[in-house]
Amino acid sequence: MQTTQQQKNYRYFGTLRRLLRRNAGPNIRKIVNKTHPADLAQILSYFPVDDQLTILTYAEDNRRRAEVLRNMPMDNAAELVVKLDIKKAVDVICEMSADDQADLLGELDEAVATEIINAMPQEDSDDVQDLLRYDERSAGGIMNPDVMAIHMDATIAEAIKMVQGAEDVDMIFYMYVVDDHNSLCGVLSLRRLVTAKPATVIKNIMNPNVVSVRTEEDQEDVARLVTRYDFLAIPVVDDTNNLVGAVTVDDVIDVIAEEATEDFLKMAGAGDEHQQSASPFKHVLSRAPWLFAALVGGILASFVISSFEETLSRYLVLAAFIPVIIGMAGNVGTQSLAVVVRGLATRQIKIKQAWNSISNEIVVGIILGCLYGAVLGAVGLWKFSGVTPDAMNLALAVGAATATAMCLAAFVASSIPIMFAKLNIDPAVATGPFVTTAIDILGVTIYFTVVNVLV
Amino acid sequence: MQTTQQQKNYRYFGTLRRLLRRNAGPNIRKIVNKTHPADLAQILSYFPVDDQLTILTYAEDNRRRAEVLRNMPMDNAAELVVKLDIKKAVDVICEMSADDQADLLGELDEAVATEIINAMPQEDSDDVQDLLRYDERSAGGIMNPDVMAIHMDATIAEAIKMVQGAEDVDMIFYMYVVDDHNSLCGVLSLRRLVTAKPATVIKNIMNPNVVSVRTEEDQEDVARLVTRYDFLAIPVVDDTNNLVGAVTVDDVIDVIAEEATEDFLKMAGAGDEHQQSASPFKHVLSRAPWLFAALVGGILASFVISSFEETLSRYLVLAAFIPVIIGMAGNVGTQSLAVVVRGLATRQIKIKQAWNSISNEIVVGIILGCLYGAVLGAVGLWKFSGVTPDAMNLALAVGAATATAMCLAAFVASSIPIMFAKLNIDPAVATGPFVTTAIDILGVTIYFTVVNVLV
Repeated sequence: MQTTQQQKNYRYFGTLRRLLRRNAGPNIRKIVNKTHPADLAQILSYFPVDDQLTILTYAEDNRRRAEVLRNMPMDNAAELVVKLDIKKAVDVICEMSADDQADLLGELDEAVATEIINAMPQEDSDDVQDLLRYDERSAGGIMNPDVMAIHMDATIAEAIKMVQGAEDVDMIFYMYVVDDHNSLCGVLSLRRLVTAKPATVIKNIMNPNVVSVRTEEDQEDVARLVTRYDFLAIPVVDDTNNLVGAVTVDDVIDVIAEEATEDFLKMAGAGDEHQQSASPFKHVLSRAPWLFAALVGGILASFVISSFEETLSRYLVLAAFIPVIIGMAGNVGTQSLAVVVRGLATRQIKIKQAWNSISNEIVVGIILGCLYGAVLGAVGLWKFSGVTPDAMNLALAVGAATATAMCLAAFVASSIPIMFAKLNIDPAVATGPFVTTAIDILGVTIYFTVVNVLV
Repeated sequence: MQTTQQQKNYRYFGTLRRLLRRNAGPNIRKIVNKTHPADLAQILSYFPVDDQLTILTYAEDNRRRAEVLRNMPMDNAAELVVKLDIKKAVDVICEMSADDQADLLGELDEAVATEIINAMPQEDSDDVQDLLRYDERSAGGIMNPDVMAIHMDATIAEAIKMVQGAEDVDMIFYMYVVDDHNSLCGVLSLRRLVTAKPATVIKNIMNPNVVSVRTEEDQEDVARLVTRYDFLAIPVVDDTNNLVGAVTVDDVIDVIAEEATEDFLKMAGAGDEHQQSASPFKHVLSRAPWLFAALVGGILASFVISSFEETLSRYLVLAAFIPVIIGMAGNVGTQSLAVVVRGLATRQIKIKQAWNSISNEIVVGIILGCLYGAVLGAVGLWKFSGVTPDAMNLALAVGAATATAMCLAAFVASSIPIMFAKLNIDPAVATGPFVTTAIDILGVTIYFTVVNVLV
């Protein structure tokens, strides 16, 4: 699981810690300025915040500090920034690109963020304030406003000059073409730029079929477009089709990882954001509501069982099978849930043809239910014989209840997320504790009902 | 959840289906050749295989057919290819890039794949056979062997000529620089190419610090490198540092999505690959082993309960609380599991400092356990009073058992994946049904032990 680079970074952490203890300035400086900022960010993550600050003072300039900060988890970077005095903080932040600035400032307390913004040069603060106005999960929130835009009547030679001058724009692959009104009207790949004659007018060789997104577009949809068409970047336009920025593929990768994490955690009812540095209290707050739902469900299940107390008092041995029956149903349900929720997220399951998936899950549930129902029935028979004269019927009941509960669990767990998707509710929200608790109630109800019928 | 483009594609599906029924050739041809191949692939996915074939006959040339195929799920593309006669199949496949060819051929039966490879032109078949030798989850398995490589002594002018000639190489952003022995010794961005003087010798302006991966490198590690350094592509070298290909960012995105799906399904014990088109029987096979583990655990839990039969016969009402206690423990455990497994996968949790995460989860477990233990104890008190004179003690037992089980569940569920990671076993494998069943056993044991102590 560990990559070599990660192991190397961990060793660097050890070295750096020793050097720090010995106050070996020149050596620390060497490591800090020779390591790739992304690796340095990882090495720093092993240190407490105060050491992180000390180490960063050895960086050769604010540009390097900014590079390291933007490679750290943003909550960690924010912790660092608040420890700097305002002047130093502004100097470092001004070396970041506008989209990274916005991410970082968005993590800070509003008062601190405002103070920093007010201390920034007018031009920078305008840019970042524009960005902060967008929802952080929209195209506007993740875009970089510094894009290379050129007028359609310009020539290739002018475009090349522009590339030469644009040192600040990171990751250039496309040049966006605009008309007199700054409306996006085409795109030119850097490759086309290399191969065209210098005198060529851009509008004659640009690709006019440029796919763009609006600032308010959801980041997940932006990621989907970039992935589907294998883009390296996608331009972002405002209501009047004016070019305002671009989302690059590296940000799209972050979005994809973030959305996967979100689905993962949501499905377990554990909030929707993994914050390593958040306090346990914050974790408690994001998880407690889901557990409350499970609690209510569990109390309902206890009422169901109590209502069958008469049956239970006759055959006490039945109680022993409660966990395994609801457990098997719960597990098969969780499997169906995972397959369907992930299938919907990756668009392998299409909402319009979702019935296929549900029926598939039902078939799987029937096969697995009959299989494990038979096994559990046999175990029951062995356990009940000698204890009660109704052993055969009780064993049959255990087997039949297992099979029925498992089939129904597969059906419920596959149809609830699809139903939610149809209602335009994120299927991942609706799942984990919610469905398993529903299956618990279902399981005990089926169990005792079947027993009452068969015994 | 539905994107506009997806809705559009679904409408196109409707249109195309009508046109197909009316045999309206010219209209079908227009749609097929005007739609982006990625969208056409999605539209086709709504059709049965035979209709997909018919529609593809309207494509203007094999290049377009190849483009559509490579945008389809590979198992679907393989179904289509086997329905073509061998000559046609080869013609289409030869229009694909070598890495896509390998993906597709890897999906086919070996006999069919061999037949196709033998019918391909020597040069193409050599390339694809080379690729098929690599593990499909390694850098070699996902790389594209067609890269732009240039000798270090060449000039910028020569490099530009090469870009102009290389129509086949899709996604050019870097030019890789090699020495006399074809060893990778540097990299040049396309942007640098645009801005340098034509007479410049490449070795003087190339970046000699080129990060590369070996062919056998795991795809997940490749993805991590590309993500960490914000690369657009990463060169792949063999044992002797010879350049053999490159992995591009679009493939990295696929890897990230695939690995997230894998973790998601593994955690639910539902296999590790989502195959929409797989038969239910295949699904049963991949899920049954996990359920078997759950079954064994569940049977063990039933023995635990049976061993407390005497206690249970005195206080029958205790049975009603079995599901809610193991349910609450199971749910808090699943939450911890999701946080830790995902944290390990995204490297937000570092194995070397994992104790922080475990202790965090324990604190969360204690808080949530006390909270819901108190609630459940109160419910118990209300339920037991009047039924038995030991009501107070039983309620205390229910509350204490809930709290204890929830704390322990958080501990077990967070430490097992970390332990697995330390042993270099994928933490996601070890989880889902495995941990929840362990928690079931733990839960009932704690419950009845606490009751025996307190009553």
